[in-house]
Amino acid sequence: MSDRNNDAPLVIFMPSGRRGHVPTGTLVLDAARQLGAEIESICGGRLTCNKCRVRLEEGHFAKHGITSTPDHLSAPSDEEVRLLERLDSLDCRLSCTAQVTGDALIFVPEESRAHKQVVRKDATTRIIDLFPAIRQVFVEVDQAKLGEHRGDWGRLQDALATKWDLHDLTIDLPVLRDLQANLRKGKWAVTVTLWQEREVIDVQPGYEEGVYGLAVDIGSTTIAGFLCDLRTGEILATDSMMNPQVTYGEDLMSRISYAMMHTDGLDKMHTAVIDALNRLAASTAREAGIRQRQIQEAVFVGNTTMTHILLGINPIELGGAPFALANRDAMDVKARELGLRLHRGANVHVLPAEAGHVGADNVAALIAEAPYSQKAVTLLVDVGTNAEIVLGNKDWLLSASSPTGPAFEGAQIRFGMRAAPGAIERVRIDPETKLARFRVIGEEMWSNEWQIGPTVPAEAQPKHLAAGICGSGIIEVIAEMFLAGVLLPDGRFNPDLNHERIRWDGKRGEYILATAEQSTTGSPILVTQDDVRNIQLAKAALYAGVKLLMNEAELESVDRIVLAGAFGSYIDPKYAMILGLIPDCDLAQVTAVGNAAGDGARIALLNKHKRIEAQRIAEWVTYVETAVHPDFQQEFVGAIHIPHASDPFPHLNGLLPEPITLVELEGNGRSERRRRRTRKTETS
Amino acid sequence: MSDRNNDAPLVIFMPSGRRGHVPTGTLVLDAARQLGAEIESICGGRLTCNKCRVRLEEGHFAKHGITSTPDHLSAPSDEEVRLLERLDSLDCRLSCTAQVTGDALIFVPEESRAHKQVVRKDATTRIIDLFPAIRQVFVEVDQAKLGEHRGDWGRLQDALATKWDLHDLTIDLPVLRDLQANLRKGKWAVTVTLWQEREVIDVQPGYEEGVYGLAVDIGSTTIAGFLCDLRTGEILATDSMMNPQVTYGEDLMSRISYAMMHTDGLDKMHTAVIDALNRLAASTAREAGIRQRQIQEAVFVGNTTMTHILLGINPIELGGAPFALANRDAMDVKARELGLRLHRGANVHVLPAEAGHVGADNVAALIAEAPYSQKAVTLLVDVGTNAEIVLGNKDWLLSASSPTGPAFEGAQIRFGMRAAPGAIERVRIDPETKLARFRVIGEEMWSNEWQIGPTVPAEAQPKHLAAGICGSGIIEVIAEMFLAGVLLPDGRFNPDLNHERIRWDGKRGEYILATAEQSTTGSPILVTQDDVRNIQLAKAALYAGVKLLMNEAELESVDRIVLAGAFGSYIDPKYAMILGLIPDCDLAQVTAVGNAAGDGARIALLNKHKRIEAQRIAEWVTYVETAVHPDFQQEFVGAIHIPHASDPFPHLNGLLPEPITLVELEGNGRSERRRRRTRKTETS
Repeated sequence: MSDRNNDAPLVIFMPSGRRGHVPTGTLVLDAARQLGAEIESICGGRLTCNKCRVRLEEGHFAKHGITSTPDHLSAPSDEEVRLLERLDSLDCRLSCTAQVTGDALIFVPEESRAHKQVVRKDATTRIIDLFPAIRQVFVEVDQAKLGEHRGDWGRLQDALATKWDLHDLTIDLPVLRDLQANLRKGKWAVTVTLWQEREVIDVQPGYEEGVYGLAVDIGSTTIAGFLCDLRTGEILATDSMMNPQVTYGEDLMSRISYAMMHTDGLDKMHTAVIDALNRLAASTAREAGIRQRQIQEAVFVGNTTMTHILLGINPIELGGAPFALANRDAMDVKARELGLRLHRGANVHVLPAEAGHVGADNVAALIAEAPYSQKAVTLLVDVGTNAEIVLGNKDWLLSASSPTGPAFEGAQIRFGMRAAPGAIERVRIDPETKLARFRVIGEEMWSNEWQIGPTVPAEAQPKHLAAGICGSGIIEVIAEMFLAGVLLPDGRFNPDLNHERIRWDGKRGEYILATAEQSTTGSPILVTQDDVRNIQLAKAALYAGVKLLMNEAELESVDRIVLAGAFGSYIDPKYAMILGLIPDCDLAQVTAVGNAAGDGARIALLNKHKRIEAQRIAEWVTYVETAVHPDFQQEFVGAIHIPHASDPFPHLNGLLPEPITLVELEGNGRSERRRRRTRKTETS
Repeated sequence: MSDRNNDAPLVIFMPSGRRGHVPTGTLVLDAARQLGAEIESICGGRLTCNKCRVRLEEGHFAKHGITSTPDHLSAPSDEEVRLLERLDSLDCRLSCTAQVTGDALIFVPEESRAHKQVVRKDATTRIIDLFPAIRQVFVEVDQAKLGEHRGDWGRLQDALATKWDLHDLTIDLPVLRDLQANLRKGKWAVTVTLWQEREVIDVQPGYEEGVYGLAVDIGSTTIAGFLCDLRTGEILATDSMMNPQVTYGEDLMSRISYAMMHTDGLDKMHTAVIDALNRLAASTAREAGIRQRQIQEAVFVGNTTMTHILLGINPIELGGAPFALANRDAMDVKARELGLRLHRGANVHVLPAEAGHVGADNVAALIAEAPYSQKAVTLLVDVGTNAEIVLGNKDWLLSASSPTGPAFEGAQIRFGMRAAPGAIERVRIDPETKLARFRVIGEEMWSNEWQIGPTVPAEAQPKHLAAGICGSGIIEVIAEMFLAGVLLPDGRFNPDLNHERIRWDGKRGEYILATAEQSTTGSPILVTQDDVRNIQLAKAALYAGVKLLMNEAELESVDRIVLAGAFGSYIDPKYAMILGLIPDCDLAQVTAVGNAAGDGARIALLNKHKRIEAQRIAEWVTYVETAVHPDFQQEFVGAIHIPHASDPFPHLNGLLPEPITLVELEGNGRSERRRRRTRKTETS
């Protein structure tokens, strides 16, 4: 045994199994710290925070070589007993006041462990260890007195060193400015917020509790934020909004052009995103019932153009080869330096990028999905206005980006909208009648179950009529239109179809998805020929990127596919494959995980070690420049049809209306070839 | 011999004597770096900065065990020869291009040494080693190219590591924002400014030279600044101005009260001093012919109230016991965080304080005068609106402060003014005629040598008539008035004196120092009874502080006295002793050093190691709280008379008008006692 002193009591902490001898009289909390069994504590022994409850296990434990009895801890004081009684925990002790007096086997319940775990309740269950970059400690500071000259900050440093073993700290200037007043207001007892165990970013008088953080995925089109309680990992509020930069260009290249063509272009776009982030912070704080200024830490992710603009760096170098980043590494910046109205000492962490247009959002998706820790070859496709694609496993990882444009996010779509109540997110079209059923966000019922009209009782009427179509809705409706024979494989409206739901504007068809009665505006909601074309272009760009990576890896197929994207609602893998956003794969191996970049941002917010992992992965992944790849154009053209003309999709067998389509194709052999040529001119 | 490789050439650098073996082909500059013989270089081998000239010493040097011949360095290129010719240095080589090919004894001339020395040309000659906190390096960076993904900042970091052995650097956000543009503008060659070898605070395209710093002593009444070239240590410009905070109170306590009584008091005073510093930076930059934004580093000193307000910290805790400082330690703050318009990446260093009211200005005076490195017991008196007093030697050091008020700086004096052209700085009064002669700043001649009037040729007329009296002038005139019998020892005007130069307002006399013809305003310049009283109060407070320290150290006398203070002009020690600002001492051992705090600020600006020394000394000195000392009042009262009634001044024997004074005192025995009581009521 390596225990250093056999006279001193032996203490074993469970379930971690940490063990060692400590001098008689050692506080259980201190023993745990010394032995590496971390117990939660903010108040540090002031009997205030009630976080450090532990249970002494009674008996002789032969396996551990220990006899543990309750009298091996010091007798509880009246105050401790009162407190435990109030907490309904008389079988427990408070580790900040109980002293070790003999051998003891001590159980640390889940809720008392310093680093809890958060289980993500999503499509994929995920466990996040809680290790936020900021934490609070309560500390009592020596009162200033005549003849003792350390200064208040010196006194606070000494107290933090003695009580919490914190050394070499700095203090943020605004905190120093109020330090004297807060120490006196708290009668020399204060709650200190530390960032990365090295900077004091807040000092509050007395005992205070509450640390909050904001994780944000800044997409080209959509900004999605998550306000979290950093003590529990709980998401207190979420909100998403349009990225106001869309005014200056719908996709990355047009934003970069805007920065290039206008001297104040960068400024305007920077201010726009900062304003949006301030609104997001305000709205989520309001929903969570806290003040915006209580948000003490933030993690931001986004593609490289988004993070450059966020930091006030001109993105023009990203507009052309060699696509040089100003900085690839993670950055920590004071929120106030960016004009963000969070806590005045708050830091913003921007995750690292990979290269070119594959930025912090993809790194975030990577740490969320961790394909680098699996044997199976995973294809991770993150669909947005700019799509990021990662292919690989624990041995190798390739990444690329594809400029899909904002169609998948409901932009460039006539009736497109954000995923908000009223957005159509699910669609089914009857192949016989060509009539659509749909479901909108905020409604349990499908549209055919709705009852509309003054004679129907209020409770039977839908709360939300259809207001538009969100990203997942547009994918479903176009796939369903194809399956129902409304669309031809080349994306044209079937000219032979004469149906009440199809309107014609010359040769360009429009499909009535929702009738005037079903819509909030009183006008029907349509899917137009342009909508279909935009989705075709987007899915072809995405697929071409995927194919280039597969070619690079010399792979014909992948083991599993993870489909991510801020569609708002989850995309149905079947429709994604019918449209051809992803290559052929066993549908059971395709998972839709929603906003993986947002999840990754949240993971980096809750666990600082994941930031280090992110930096490592960002440097490890091999970036493939698809934009200048000679095969890109060919793959792109081959992927315009529904389903792709370039590749077989055996896993769609039985799902596609093959006979009908084939017959039609064969029956129109020559005209189809002509149409193909037209399409190429149209889309290339 | 500890040389690691006897096959490799042996290189010895003189005069440092650094020696060692280096591989054949090593650049002389690199050899010097490896062996610790620092040679100046900015361009790092681009044959641009011409700073690294060295001379190969030819011959056999038995003492050093080396034979050194010119062919032991690689032959110079045509370019090097051309350059050396142009520099008239054909006996030299450029160490950045010459390679070691055999044993060599190399002399590094003074101007090529990395850390030059600056000789202060003042009352006390002083040598400052040049080690500024910022320096520039020129570096060529790998060009961004497709398939290489480090990011521009990563590329710059790699170049700085390879070329200059600089690691773990951070980059200031504004620099990162412009990095890409500057790298391309400089064709991937840039000049980088580093702060403390750890932060990149500027990147300029191409080869640039010039680093400037500002040292400022922020006094309660006067702000004095020195703009320095950090490559040479030269003072390029100096300026001083009134501290605009005087609007809010003349001395520390009234400023602290103002902060206490007005919610916006701190804000107003903070803004006032920041505005003044911006004006000072602008005026000195203009004088030096540089832009204000080129000032990349600043050192600020001041008493604790001044530095607190400077940093935006409310000084109210300094208004009463226990006089707790918010922070005693040195601080580095971004200039922009304080609203200072220096270089956008400039850092401000504020020297540490000692305790109570003894602040960074006294620490600066200490590193300038270094009494802690001497055996002799030194009394250092720094006179200002708040006087700081230090007593001790290399074994012990006591410090204290005394609230003298602003009289010594010409405030609270009817015709007081800053030390500017026109201020009376020297005064002599004829004891017989009671007529004054004086000299004003900006004039060589004394006033009796002046010729005034329309009939006198212009060149014989003074450029400056008297505009007022500065600090050193007020001390001389009052001492001279006493010596001439105009003033009685208790400070009253001699009521028995009937003289054209003395005017009476009831019992209160006024002495005409300059006549209407001699003054700029056309009205006479007077010394009033109130002026005399204010100086008496000030000198008594100062002397009481000195006495308390001497009592604390159980000393009857000191070995030497250093008299410092921003009087503008140097104070004459004789008059300082006659008035009793300082205790009795051999006048040959009394030195007036001018603005020692400003000198110390400049030293800390030029030499970063002195900042560390400052921190050590600030913690080492023992602060004595005089304000609450039970003996203070008694010493104060005893020091009101001229000369002090409390102590003998044997070194003034022969200088004082003893017989006259004594006769007068004896002859007025009873009435004098009455007058003393009156005075106590008046002044206490």
